[in-house]
Parts: sequence; structure tokens; C-alpha cells
Amino acid sequence: MHPDIITSLVTKTESKIVLLVMDGVGGLPINGKTELEAARTPNLDRLARENICGLTDSIDRGITAGSGPGHLGIFGYNPTRYEIGRGVLEALGVGIEMTPLDVATRGNFATRDVHVITDRRAGRIPTETNQKLCAKIAKVIPEIDGVKVIIHSGMEHRFVVLFRGEGLDGRIADADPQSPGLPPKPARALAPEAEKAAGIANHFIQKAEEVLKDEHPANTILLRGFAKYPDIPSMEERFRLTPAAIATYPMYRGLAKLVGMHLLETGQTIGDEIQTLKENYDAYDFFFVHIKKTDSYGEDGNFDKKVAVIEELDSHIPEVLSLEPDVLVVTADHSTPSLLQSHSWHPNPFLLINRYIRPDEVTRFSERAFVHGGLGRFPAEDGIVLMLAHALKLRKFGA
Amino acid sequence: MHPDIITSLVTKTESKIVLLVMDGVGGLPINGKTELEAARTPNLDRLARENICGLTDSIDRGITAGSGPGHLGIFGYNPTRYEIGRGVLEALGVGIEMTPLDVATRGNFATRDVHVITDRRAGRIPTETNQKLCAKIAKVIPEIDGVKVIIHSGMEHRFVVLFRGEGLDGRIADADPQSPGLPPKPARALAPEAEKAAGIANHFIQKAEEVLKDEHPANTILLRGFAKYPDIPSMEERFRLTPAAIATYPMYRGLAKLVGMHLLETGQTIGDEIQTLKENYDAYDFFFVHIKKTDSYGEDGNFDKKVAVIEELDSHIPEVLSLEPDVLVVTADHSTPSLLQSHSWHPNPFLLINRYIRPDEVTRFSERAFVHGGLGRFPAEDGIVLMLAHALKLRKFGA
Repeated sequence: MHPDIITSLVTKTESKIVLLVMDGVGGLPINGKTELEAARTPNLDRLARENICGLTDSIDRGITAGSGPGHLGIFGYNPTRYEIGRGVLEALGVGIEMTPLDVATRGNFATRDVHVITDRRAGRIPTETNQKLCAKIAKVIPEIDGVKVIIHSGMEHRFVVLFRGEGLDGRIADADPQSPGLPPKPARALAPEAEKAAGIANHFIQKAEEVLKDEHPANTILLRGFAKYPDIPSMEERFRLTPAAIATYPMYRGLAKLVGMHLLETGQTIGDEIQTLKENYDAYDFFFVHIKKTDSYGEDGNFDKKVAVIEELDSHIPEVLSLEPDVLVVTADHSTPSLLQSHSWHPNPFLLINRYIRPDEVTRFSERAFVHGGLGRFPAEDGIVLMLAHALKLRKFGA
Repeated sequence: MHPDIITSLVTKTESKIVLLVMDGVGGLPINGKTELEAARTPNLDRLARENICGLTDSIDRGITAGSGPGHLGIFGYNPTRYEIGRGVLEALGVGIEMTPLDVATRGNFATRDVHVITDRRAGRIPTETNQKLCAKIAKVIPEIDGVKVIIHSGMEHRFVVLFRGEGLDGRIADADPQSPGLPPKPARALAPEAEKAAGIANHFIQKAEEVLKDEHPANTILLRGFAKYPDIPSMEERFRLTPAAIATYPMYRGLAKLVGMHLLETGQTIGDEIQTLKENYDAYDFFFVHIKKTDSYGEDGNFDKKVAVIEELDSHIPEVLSLEPDVLVVTADHSTPSLLQSHSWHPNPFLLINRYIRPDEVTRFSERAFVHGGLGRFPAEDGIVLMLAHALKLRKFGA
């Protein structure tokens, strides 16, 4: 369905939607059971029994979603239509506040001799050295030709740079020869509109080399993954929602901000997040609650700890229900099977709790059970339409 | 999913994919059972029980696929985007090697009096006469204005002609009045780019009439189904696969060649084909194995013989499994129910054998059982994406 049509049908109402995302919750069987099947989830099972469910494809069959596209999908945006570049995701991940004027890029401290890059990671310098060097660069190069430069140190040799100014475009090829033994490579505009930003980036590299000229091994920098802050219509604009995000990790807070969600301060545990939901329940009509650790333990290949996070979340379900949201959805942005120790393409469970549903015959919250769910299988980006519809926020189409 | 996105995500790996196509295997019940349901298939049933399955639409719901589009779909190409013209399919079917320079057309020997075509099939002349006449034409007309002419006799009155040269376009209306009693109709360009080829075709008809002027009843020819060799990106280009085809019939070998598969020499039986698979297993990473006779017996309305072919294939499954392919898919290009004695629109079983699947609850290899398969129902062209994903050949989309 074209998003403009959705927008034309939405009405602002009092009804409330809670979207509970268990990051990467879908798995694969180990000893015959997936993480969800191994977990004891009496509350989710009861909800599955009394409500309606299905499976979603984060992007499309067989395609594994990164965190950016995975979340755009569940927020109701076509993940191949809106691109979140690597630099932007990195900036969001370290918690830098971005603005629509920004081009972000990932950086490496590196080593060069006169003519070639000899080490693309400057021997993986200690993080403390990185912090010291970033501070020095920040002090000497606060801006270039009216473009503000914001540098944020990361782990070992890594950092992030934002260029903030009018008329910057992110379509720039990496200033990185990719292999040692090759000469440095300047940033190169891939479109005429990006000439200005590429020039600024090259100017920045040159000035950084001056700052670093007496350093060793970190005497130069490489920049890659240039990306402009994406121009995405807000959820307010597109869905007439007043959305809030409850997430502990910077990247997911950043992704929520990209679509205009208000970021709520919260703590580190699932309990903290549910508490934040309760405390702010009156002020918004859409809540994105992000549970990170299902994904983290999946990535670690830690089946048992992933199971434990699922069970922990299950134990908080009654608290969520006590708020009596008009629509509660429990789903994921992509799968992260412990077996693969990575994101995967397998479809996500999608459970919809609401009073205007036709209950299906599913009695268990699991990937396999949800194959038979009454909602069938659908693209993740359609989930928001189901949420709006069941919250009675969508007018009929045509007379 | 846009094919360019798939291409951007593919990596070359060591993993191997075997695509086993039982042509037209899907059927309709006669006395309550389809051919697959009537067949004893212990090996396929066990694989269905332990793995994951679904149903594919060759093109779209309700649309019956010809052999060309049916195979393009399972090779991962949108069958409505790439057209394989009738002349090309005919040329592939009789085993003519085509090149990208070629325009192919089907021909009929026909009878004309001075002004009109009196018999569009020249009384269905004997095949031997056809061969003699084709040899005569080939000798007298080896080329026209620098365009090479290749003629290949067929059954009764039918033959195939290739025009091979630079700048030929296949958008040409039939040189065939369609009904007897009408005057001959010259080939007519449907686009300015096709003027050259239409001119060559008309020149060829005129010269052929000179060759045939003393023949009776075959004193002229009709040409129809003009088609240029289609410009289809190869599977190597699109999916970074090194594919091989094992097929006994020329048309399927030709279709495989259209997408750049290497054609392996093989024998006439399923056993021969599996032997060829074993002997060449090390040299490729994708194998298309085509089983023809399920379709042939379906077309004949021979339910029992179709059942027997299915059982024969089933008996060879352990040999295929002994190769331990990373991905094994058993599917079809379209259905050919004995009840209809023709291709049909009914969806195809699709069974995927791999270690990274969530087994579903299906316990039998059949159309009806697969309705409940964990893969759901999907367009045949998405099958390749699932194969690549499960072979761990696809990187994630976005970061």
C-alpha cells in the first residue's frame, strides 16, 4: 500500500499502541528447539492463544536485515526505499546527536610513510591514545570553510566524524585504499552535489595529518562509509502518531529519532524499560520498547542466555497488560539464531493483542507455531498498518 | 526484491546448491489422489518431515507457465521481465546452438497458387521430404547480405531458421496469413530497428520460393514467431554462481544456456543424470538437474507412468544426499496434471533441505501437505534467494 494512502486515512485518536521489539528473537533449533521453544513463556503463550499472530519478513524472503533496515521496517518504512548509510549508523551507535545538515563518516587512525599507507589501523592503538588524538584534532580543527567538524573517538583505531553545514551531500567514495601498501586515496564525489562535502573531507584529512605529523604510528586518517543524515518523514507526519522510544542502546535510540520519536530516558534492565513505559504512558500514543539482549546473546551464540532474556521479558508482560494498551504487538526486527551467531533471514514472530481480532488456533509463542497464525506471512513494514487499523485509527478507503 | 540488490549482497563461497526440478510434477486428484500422493516416496517423505517446504507460483496465481517462463522463474529471473520468443524456444527445443546475434523463427512449408496460400502445411509433407528441402535451401541460401542463414528441419512441414548477423532485431510480425485462401504476407517490422531483419526475412522467402518453384505441394514457406536471442544476465553475473545443467532434452539445455549454465553431457535416464551430477560435483557450485518425464506423462494423461517416474526419482534421492549438498531443493517449473493433459497454474511443491531451517510439521511430499509448509507460498523466482541465503552466500542488507 502506498504510504501516502495510509497517511490520507489516518486519524488522531486517544487509542494507544505499544510495540514491543525483542531484537533478533527468532532462532533456529538446537537439539530440536529454538530459543523461543526452549523458553518458558506462560504469559506470551496465553496471549498467543487468545489473540492473533503471523510471521513477518524484515525486508523480503531470504534477505537478512541489518539493524537499520530491520527497524525501519517495523516502524512502517520500506527499508529499501530509505537508506541509512554506514557512517550514520555508526554515529547513532555511539550516541552522537545528528541533524539533517550532517554528513557522517567512520574514521580509522592509520600509518603512512611518504607514499603509501603501511597500516590501515595504526597498529590498533590503545583507546586512550585514540581519545587523546581525537581531542587534539577537535581543538585544532573545529570547522572548515564554515562547516562544523564534530569528532567522536571510538575503540582502538576507530572514530566517527560529522561534517555539519549547508549543502553537504554524502555520495562520496571512501578515502581509504582498502589494502596496505597503496597510496592514500582522497575522498571522491560520486555526484556533482557531493563535490563540496568531498572537498571538505579532503581538507580535513590534510589538516588532520598536520595535527598528527609527529605522532607514530597514528600519523594519518582514513575515512569511509560517508553518509548523509537520511531524509525520512516522521511518524507524526506519516501516521499522525505521537511516538516515544524506550531503548537502552544508542543505536536504537538513534534509529527511533530518525523517524521522529521522542526519546525517553530509561535504565539498563527490561524492568527499567517497562517502568519508563508506565511513567510516560499518558503522554504518547505510540511506544517503541526495544529489548536488546535477545540479539546480543544470539550474536554470542549463547542459547541459554538468550532463552533467559526471553523468559525475563515474559515475566514483565502482565505489567504491560495492566496498562491496557489498545494494541500491543510483540515482534522482532530480524532473527539472530544462536546457531548462526549472526542476524539471519528467517521470518519474525508477530503477535497482535487487541479486542478486534479473530483468534487463530495458535497456542504457543514460537516461530513454528506462528506459521499457522491467522495473520499469515507479510512484510514487516505492513505491521504498522495493522497496528493503526486495530487501534481504530484508520478510516475506510473510498466511500 | 530488486535483482541489483541481490547481486550486491552475493558472495562467492565454497557451498554447493543442487536444484532438482521434476518438470510439471504437480497434479490434480484422480480417484482422490494426485500423482505425488499416489506415488510411494519414502525418501522424499522423510526429507519433507525433517526439513522445510512451501508452494511456489511459477509466475503468479492462476497463470499457467510455459516451459520458458517456468524455468526462468526457478532460475531466479522474473518471467514477465525476460521474454523468450517462440522462435527462440523452438530453436532451443531442436538443439540449435544460438548466439546473441541471432533472430530465430519457426517455419512451415506451405502451398501457394499464383495469388493465395492454399495450404499452410503443404499437406503435412513427410519429414524426409522436409529434410531434403531444407538441405536444398541451406545449400542455395547460406547467407543473405552478410547475414548467415541457418535452417534446421523439423517434423512434417515444420522447420526453424536462424538469421545470424549484426543489427538484427526480432520485433517482426509473422510472414503468415494465418488462414488459407489469403495472399502471402511479407514479414513486417514492428519497430524501426527491425527493418533490416524483416528485409532479410522477406529476401529469404523470395529466394526459398525460387528454390522450391518446381516442388509440389511445398512450393513456398511461411515464417512466424520471430524472436531475438534474449539478453539475460548470466547466473554468474547476477548470483556469482558457477552453474551447471544436467538435462537430457534440448529445450531445457537451451534454457539453461540462456542464463549461462555450463551444459554437462549426460544420458537418457534419471540414473544417468544423477551419475553426471556425482562425476561433476567438484567443479561447480550450482547444479540444475532436470527430470523431464513427469511432464511428458502428465501431457499424455498417463497418471500411472507419471507416478512411476516420481517413484524412480525418489529411489535416487539417497545418491544425491550422499554428496551432502549444502542446499538441496526439489521443486517444479509448473504443474502438469494428468487430468488436464497440459501445463496448469496450480502451485508447485518446493522442498528445501539445509541445516539452517526451522522444520515445519509437514510429513509427506505432496501438494496438499505443502500447503502447511513453513516457507508458505511465494513466487518461484524468490526460490533462488532462499537457496543463496541457506547456502550462506548472501551478506546482510544494511548495517
